[in-house]
Amino acid sequence: MKKAAEKPGTGKPIKPQPRYTGIATFFKAPYVDDPSSVDIGLVGVPFDGGVTNRPGARHGPREVRNQSTLIRKHHHPSGFAPSEACRIADLGDVWVETPYQLESAIENIGKFYERVVAAGVVPLSIGGDHSMSFPILREIGKKQPVGLVHIDAHFDTGSEVNGTTVHHGAPFGNAVEAGVLDPKRTVQIGIRGTLSRPDVGQFSFDSGMRVIFMEEYMELGRKKVIEEARRIVGTGPTYLSFDIDSLDPVYAPGTGTPEVGGLSTIEAQMLIRGLQGIDFVGGDLAEVSPPFDPSGNTAFVGAAMLFEMLCVLAHAHVKRKSLS
Amino acid sequence: MKKAAEKPGTGKPIKPQPRYTGIATFFKAPYVDDPSSVDIGLVGVPFDGGVTNRPGARHGPREVRNQSTLIRKHHHPSGFAPSEACRIADLGDVWVETPYQLESAIENIGKFYERVVAAGVVPLSIGGDHSMSFPILREIGKKQPVGLVHIDAHFDTGSEVNGTTVHHGAPFGNAVEAGVLDPKRTVQIGIRGTLSRPDVGQFSFDSGMRVIFMEEYMELGRKKVIEEARRIVGTGPTYLSFDIDSLDPVYAPGTGTPEVGGLSTIEAQMLIRGLQGIDFVGGDLAEVSPPFDPSGNTAFVGAAMLFEMLCVLAHAHVKRKSLS
Amino acid sequence: MKKAAEKPGTGKPIKPQPRYTGIATFFKAPYVDDPSSVDIGLVGVPFDGGVTNRPGARHGPREVRNQSTLIRKHHHPSGFAPSEACRIADLGDVWVETPYQLESAIENIGKFYERVVAAGVVPLSIGGDHSMSFPILREIGKKQPVGLVHIDAHFDTGSEVNGTTVHHGAPFGNAVEAGVLDPKRTVQIGIRGTLSRPDVGQFSFDSGMRVIFMEEYMELGRKKVIEEARRIVGTGPTYLSFDIDSLDPVYAPGTGTPEVGGLSTIEAQMLIRGLQGIDFVGGDLAEVSPPFDPSGNTAFVGAAMLFEMLCVLAHAHVKRKSLS
Amino acid sequence: MKKAAEKPGTGKPIKPQPRYTGIATFFKAPYVDDPSSVDIGLVGVPFDGGVTNRPGARHGPREVRNQSTLIRKHHHPSGFAPSEACRIADLGDVWVETPYQLESAIENIGKFYERVVAAGVVPLSIGGDHSMSFPILREIGKKQPVGLVHIDAHFDTGSEVNGTTVHHGAPFGNAVEAGVLDPKRTVQIGIRGTLSRPDVGQFSFDSGMRVIFMEEYMELGRKKVIEEARRIVGTGPTYLSFDIDSLDPVYAPGTGTPEVGGLSTIEAQMLIRGLQGIDFVGGDLAEVSPPFDPSGNTAFVGAAMLFEMLCVLAHAHVKRKSLS
Amino acid sequence: MKKAAEKPGTGKPIKPQPRYTGIATFFKAPYVDDPSSVDIGLVGVPFDGGVTNRPGARHGPREVRNQSTLIRKHHHPSGFAPSEACRIADLGDVWVETPYQLESAIENIGKFYERVVAAGVVPLSIGGDHSMSFPILREIGKKQPVGLVHIDAHFDTGSEVNGTTVHHGAPFGNAVEAGVLDPKRTVQIGIRGTLSRPDVGQFSFDSGMRVIFMEEYMELGRKKVIEEARRIVGTGPTYLSFDIDSLDPVYAPGTGTPEVGGLSTIEAQMLIRGLQGIDFVGGDLAEVSPPFDPSGNTAFVGAAMLFEMLCVLAHAHVKRKSLS
Amino acid sequence: MKKAAEKPGTGKPIKPQPRYTGIATFFKAPYVDDPSSVDIGLVGVPFDGGVTNRPGARHGPREVRNQSTLIRKHHHPSGFAPSEACRIADLGDVWVETPYQLESAIENIGKFYERVVAAGVVPLSIGGDHSMSFPILREIGKKQPVGLVHIDAHFDTGSEVNGTTVHHGAPFGNAVEAGVLDPKRTVQIGIRGTLSRPDVGQFSFDSGMRVIFMEEYMELGRKKVIEEARRIVGTGPTYLSFDIDSLDPVYAPGTGTPEVGGLSTIEAQMLIRGLQGIDFVGGDLAEVSPPFDPSGNTAFVGAAMLFEMLCVLAHAHVKRKSLS
Repeated sequence: MKKAAEKPGTGKPIKPQPRYTGIATFFKAPYVDDPSSVDIGLVGVPFDGGVTNRPGARHGPREVRNQSTLIRKHHHPSGFAPSEACRIADLGDVWVETPYQLESAIENIGKFYERVVAAGVVPLSIGGDHSMSFPILREIGKKQPVGLVHIDAHFDTGSEVNGTTVHHGAPFGNAVEAGVLDPKRTVQIGIRGTLSRPDVGQFSFDSGMRVIFMEEYMELGRKKVIEEARRIVGTGPTYLSFDIDSLDPVYAPGTGTPEVGGLSTIEAQMLIRGLQGIDFVGGDLAEVSPPFDPSGNTAFVGAAMLFEMLCVLAHAHVKRKSLS
Repeated sequence: MKKAAEKPGTGKPIKPQPRYTGIATFFKAPYVDDPSSVDIGLVGVPFDGGVTNRPGARHGPREVRNQSTLIRKHHHPSGFAPSEACRIADLGDVWVETPYQLESAIENIGKFYERVVAAGVVPLSIGGDHSMSFPILREIGKKQPVGLVHIDAHFDTGSEVNGTTVHHGAPFGNAVEAGVLDPKRTVQIGIRGTLSRPDVGQFSFDSGMRVIFMEEYMELGRKKVIEEARRIVGTGPTYLSFDIDSLDPVYAPGTGTPEVGGLSTIEAQMLIRGLQGIDFVGGDLAEVSPPFDPSGNTAFVGAAMLFEMLCVLAHAHVKRKSLS
Repeated sequence: MKKAAEKPGTGKPIKPQPRYTGIATFFKAPYVDDPSSVDIGLVGVPFDGGVTNRPGARHGPREVRNQSTLIRKHHHPSGFAPSEACRIADLGDVWVETPYQLESAIENIGKFYERVVAAGVVPLSIGGDHSMSFPILREIGKKQPVGLVHIDAHFDTGSEVNGTTVHHGAPFGNAVEAGVLDPKRTVQIGIRGTLSRPDVGQFSFDSGMRVIFMEEYMELGRKKVIEEARRIVGTGPTYLSFDIDSLDPVYAPGTGTPEVGGLSTIEAQMLIRGLQGIDFVGGDLAEVSPPFDPSGNTAFVGAAMLFEMLCVLAHAHVKRKSLS
Repeated sequence: MKKAAEKPGTGKPIKPQPRYTGIATFFKAPYVDDPSSVDIGLVGVPFDGGVTNRPGARHGPREVRNQSTLIRKHHHPSGFAPSEACRIADLGDVWVETPYQLESAIENIGKFYERVVAAGVVPLSIGGDHSMSFPILREIGKKQPVGLVHIDAHFDTGSEVNGTTVHHGAPFGNAVEAGVLDPKRTVQIGIRGTLSRPDVGQFSFDSGMRVIFMEEYMELGRKKVIEEARRIVGTGPTYLSFDIDSLDPVYAPGTGTPEVGGLSTIEAQMLIRGLQGIDFVGGDLAEVSPPFDPSGNTAFVGAAMLFEMLCVLAHAHVKRKSLS
Repeated sequence: MKKAAEKPGTGKPIKPQPRYTGIATFFKAPYVDDPSSVDIGLVGVPFDGGVTNRPGARHGPREVRNQSTLIRKHHHPSGFAPSEACRIADLGDVWVETPYQLESAIENIGKFYERVVAAGVVPLSIGGDHSMSFPILREIGKKQPVGLVHIDAHFDTGSEVNGTTVHHGAPFGNAVEAGVLDPKRTVQIGIRGTLSRPDVGQFSFDSGMRVIFMEEYMELGRKKVIEEARRIVGTGPTYLSFDIDSLDPVYAPGTGTPEVGGLSTIEAQMLIRGLQGIDFVGGDLAEVSPPFDPSGNTAFVGAAMLFEMLCVLAHAHVKRKSLS
Repeated sequence: MKKAAEKPGTGKPIKPQPRYTGIATFFKAPYVDDPSSVDIGLVGVPFDGGVTNRPGARHGPREVRNQSTLIRKHHHPSGFAPSEACRIADLGDVWVETPYQLESAIENIGKFYERVVAAGVVPLSIGGDHSMSFPILREIGKKQPVGLVHIDAHFDTGSEVNGTTVHHGAPFGNAVEAGVLDPKRTVQIGIRGTLSRPDVGQFSFDSGMRVIFMEEYMELGRKKVIEEARRIVGTGPTYLSFDIDSLDPVYAPGTGTPEVGGLSTIEAQMLIRGLQGIDFVGGDLAEVSPPFDPSGNTAFVGAAMLFEMLCVLAHAHVKRKSLS
């Protein structure tokens, strides 16, 4: 009983390579250039040209890759191993050719996902700032607008700022206007923080999104929030966007626009787990900014959240495959 | 809808200056030397000569000013903007002429507030260590003793230590003895931490203060604590004192006498909001010590708490004005 | 009333030496080489040769000693002072002669405790990695297997890894197999984190331990968890093992195998307090790794937990003495 | 002799306000909106949209302001006080209206300096990334091309990168091509670091700039480097540009493209002092990036370098005034 | 002239991928499993079981890989690009099967290099602690003992400590005794630091190594030290071992046994460059310990030193090839 | 040859206890309460009430004790072991009874040294701020004024500030005026930094001290500075005072009034060694302020400097003893 585990069918003990060794890809998944044989593709988006305040999220993919190597294979509450259920790969980083022009950079990002989505891959992206969600959604929602579970401190449905509408405070408004996101099937969870104008979130309300402020979250409790989220998005294809600033800054100091009074990690983990069963067709983790995180904890927490997201995306993929 | 917001009545878009730019005053409020046209005055008290353990709070005002620039204009749960409801200014820093003698330094602090209170300004002070509350209260409670909501890990009603009674562990006992604080209208919330003597809090109990230990807070829950606090202080003029060490050290490591097991930021925010309606006539944020906070999070959290305090003070001011 | 406290029976004021001064022993307890006149012995175990990932816990005793000087004499909820109820001493550090060979190092550790246990001392150990618990339990449970309250993110009942079974992921399995730990009287609280294999905890379940995953903890709530723990261990002699990684990494980043989503400090404090009355005959605090904790908070939190443990151990000692 | 110094002509002691108090402007100079009565204007340029690697210099002006308050009034080797010799003011921050488009942002910066230069003010700018030097030089060299002492690890005369030529690696090439910088009167000191192409510095050599690599600096020694710099720029109007990455990263880790093996601070101080007498008509301190500098030392070092620069600029101003 | 550089023969501009993007291998070299087509192989040795004090070097390879991506292709003093002159690859990490037994771990390391050396690859290794040098040298010096340039604060020719002779303070003594290192062709540079015994370096002296203490280095100056080193090792095959603690701790705090008063980075860079022309057949960078280096500067400095080493190794390889 | 060293005369191998274990006293010297059998007494002065800017040096003794355990027994250039040549002890910390009143605190410090000096102990003190040097010198120079080697960035001979003349910027002026320090036998080395008034150092010049500014140090070079220092202090009894801010802030960021452009550690080490032979009768290490030093390097550097000081003090003691 106390001997080392065996490799199935070999009689030889498993010799686990310590997790701090080897080249760092996301969750030590194989690094694959060609998406054609991949079910879920992990993609880095090292771009932060859309931030309105503190930059640095361009360094997010690198550090999340590093810290993700601390994550093991199986989800402990279920024993589920996404990498056994699906073909998962690290597809490398999006190449932003024109980083000095935000609008054209957004187009660069879109092009990468055109290829990924065309290959039938479910993309799980690691930012980078939240402006990436708009070009990603444009590809994912091309055929049919998707629903959205959006966990964040901010609405991200804002209007023009200093000459652009594609900054990181506006991707979901942009996606609604582009017809790729269904606001009636959108729920925003954890919203809080001081406002530059009282009507900053007007687009969310006017378009019919369900907004659950942090205060309502505290009143309702996690279980009712989960019920509400599932009710809103229903059974259609849905995107999952997790902004690391949904967490309290104490858990995730390394981010561009921190807001005091957010979720704890255990809350966020159990919230994401509660979404299992939704038909997720893509997701992203946004706004991990390592320069503001000397201890590395934000990237580590980001990797842990990414694993929870990977699990619910893998479940959805398995379910779709079993139905098709 | 997605265009930039307009400046009211101008047809021109608002061009928000990024919050990391410009000279750092508290919440970017105007820096004003003459208090005569100010409703609420933000005052720095860069003094830590009253600490019993780790120093550094003298650097608090500078860093809270910096981090406060991350706070925007409107309170998100209500849309309320204190700076639109009142005339708010940064009155600069108290000038302590004799920092090498605690007792005389305390007198220096008092003199500054004499002028502020005489001008009819509601002071909201940023320490510095908690010893400042005594000379401030002496001015505010001169005509009539005030009530107190005191959120802290420590009683701060202690006795003589090493030759002085005006150290940072004693301001509220001193204020009671000086007849400027009404102990029957005083509630202390969040008290905890190991004790050098079992009777450290005796003065609080003997004088009739209501003490809510952290353990009782966990049992009662926030809503009942708020009810109790409102009941105790009633409708009379009340002071609000928030020691950053009421928060768990993980939220506020930069402080002189941290005590494990404190409030989270979301708890503290909702606690302060629950006090809205009380007739606050002044307040302070004490014990932010930047040298023990390399990440700057303590000062950021302090600024967020300060904004909550500013909101309830501004509400009280508006109410008083509307009644007069 | 506002004068300094007096030394009992002297009429002279107590002059408290600031806590940052003097030589740092655990809680400033006397440093004693001979255990014969000691009730509870605090022992450092500066060894981390049993870790499977990030090292550094060898530096734990030094830093916990430092930070423990911030802890005062009395427990605030009860006024209880362990150092008044028992003879408490710092017994120094275990001397590991052969640190380059894990198995022989484990024997070195055992030898130290042989002497301590023979002298009738209740040991409270500060690691160092969790591999120390096995040789300690071998001495403590020599006459009679003990029960165990084990607060941790990991089962620590694992099997052989890379050629050894005495690594830090296996002490409690080893202790069961050595007949010194009763698995039926063992409760494991806070278990979570991704798994390298789905059956990592199989030994715990098969041997009859009660496992309370973090998720179950959140569902049950602290009070029911405490009830369950007391029920499991019953009235027999019991060991208390607290792994600092039971806490969320935000409270304790300085540890070798952090797992997102753990306990908060206030939860952990109240959990340990809830165990008062159990017949504790020893305990340990494991896995504080200062190199991964530039801020020092992990060691400070560790010292706070250690004080809670010291209180319940001292209560048990007093009770045993009163019964004998 | 041991009494406090007197305020000249008052008989009253000077009571120095501690340097950690008060609102932080550059060197506590008055904050002035109207440049008309200013000799030397300190200007923040909170913009980093021109970097090719690590961002964050947008936060430079704020932190250099803070740390500059540690600098006292008089230069110790000479007793010289720039603020007594000239009218020095903090002119606040440049307002970049279109930060999401590098080229238009560069125009925004230029506009600010148009006003400053028109008012006859000598600008000393604090970045922000080095791309600012091009629009500043366009204003300063409008009437007549200027010479340049450029202390940096990089040539900054590079070519197009990813669609733009106005990034932070090209300002001095741009200035030469715009006819506002005389390459024959330009000296570059401290150049080093690996190269993406062997011909990265070709423009510097082809245009006739004098390049002193770090290796040549070590061979020649500081005195000969100073002689050479003075010879190159001669007596004409000259600009002084100091990139913080000219220093070894150990002195200035907080920067975007650090290069190991640079100057020490004492070398840099004495180098700048050696330039006294040159007819400086402006200067800038570039690339202080606080997010990569948790300790704050880079901003402190930047402030110290800025003071040296201020001294040589003030000397030049005094000399010009005395000649006119 | 100001246009982007062209890809040779394509007429298309080079679009440099920013250095913070993509998977991190050493210098972004290809990751290759089969050494047969490689000239110089970069190898990680994530093992620190041989340290006598502070651990953590097991995390060195990961962080040096990350920071090495900041290094560009060409050496600036010469324009030389090792990756154009040789086939360079990242061979991944040595797999230490039995990390809990130092002696057997040393054998594990040796096995990896057996394969590498057999394939004719010149290994450049990144530790890990310095104990790795012994098994590496055993392979490299198998046919013929090699000479050594050893830059370090410590002799590393020590004797048995706590039951082992293969710890990190002894590799070069072991190599001499194994007949793979020629002590007469060995020079040790930068030795310093307090000693546990006055005769700690006796083996170095007795065996005929040339020891240049830090004090002698300061007296002689770099140029004479280089001459002396070249004289000692002569024209035979030579190994280059650089311990990061040869640098002053201010440049490299992240190491296990720091010694105040060491080399600066510019000294070390120019020292290594001065060794060009020696027939280097292998090298290693030892003792980078990221846990003791929150800022990451040690790993960055390590990467910069590694690049200098790579250049002199590549030069030697080219020369050997041209002669054969 | 490769076996472990033997304990002299025992035939048993020495088993060195790792330096990170055990209780931390200065250099692991015995902690002794009674000075009567001690030659050189290491004394902590945990007091910073005399600072004019950033506090925290009260935490210096604790951290220097910790880091001093990294220092081994023998000085490497000479093999000299102070602890073998003299009876060295850690005498614990000075007890400052009235820390809230600077002037009376200075008297408290003096009282401690009265006892130490009366016992014939040579005190080597670890601050704490530099104000301690005055009361120490009053005891040491009681019978006969002493000479002084003072290595510092500041003159420390200043006048009254904010109501006191015994602050940390004035101890040596005070000592001259008290007749315990001979200014003609005083040399100040490394002075630099901006000045609040041009005549800050007037007392030094007027009283006849020899001031070597940092600039002169660079011009003269270390050897001539040493010669000059030896010439000034001559053969009489001399005190050695080392302010950690004499070092460049990059080596010692943890200090209250850092000044850019200071000594490197190797310079400082060789400077102190050059003083060997002077008749030192006491010394101090001042201004190590751990709160401003998250990495701990300042305390480590302080410990290394302290060891150099201990060596020259021990040499002087041995010489005096041999002469008597």
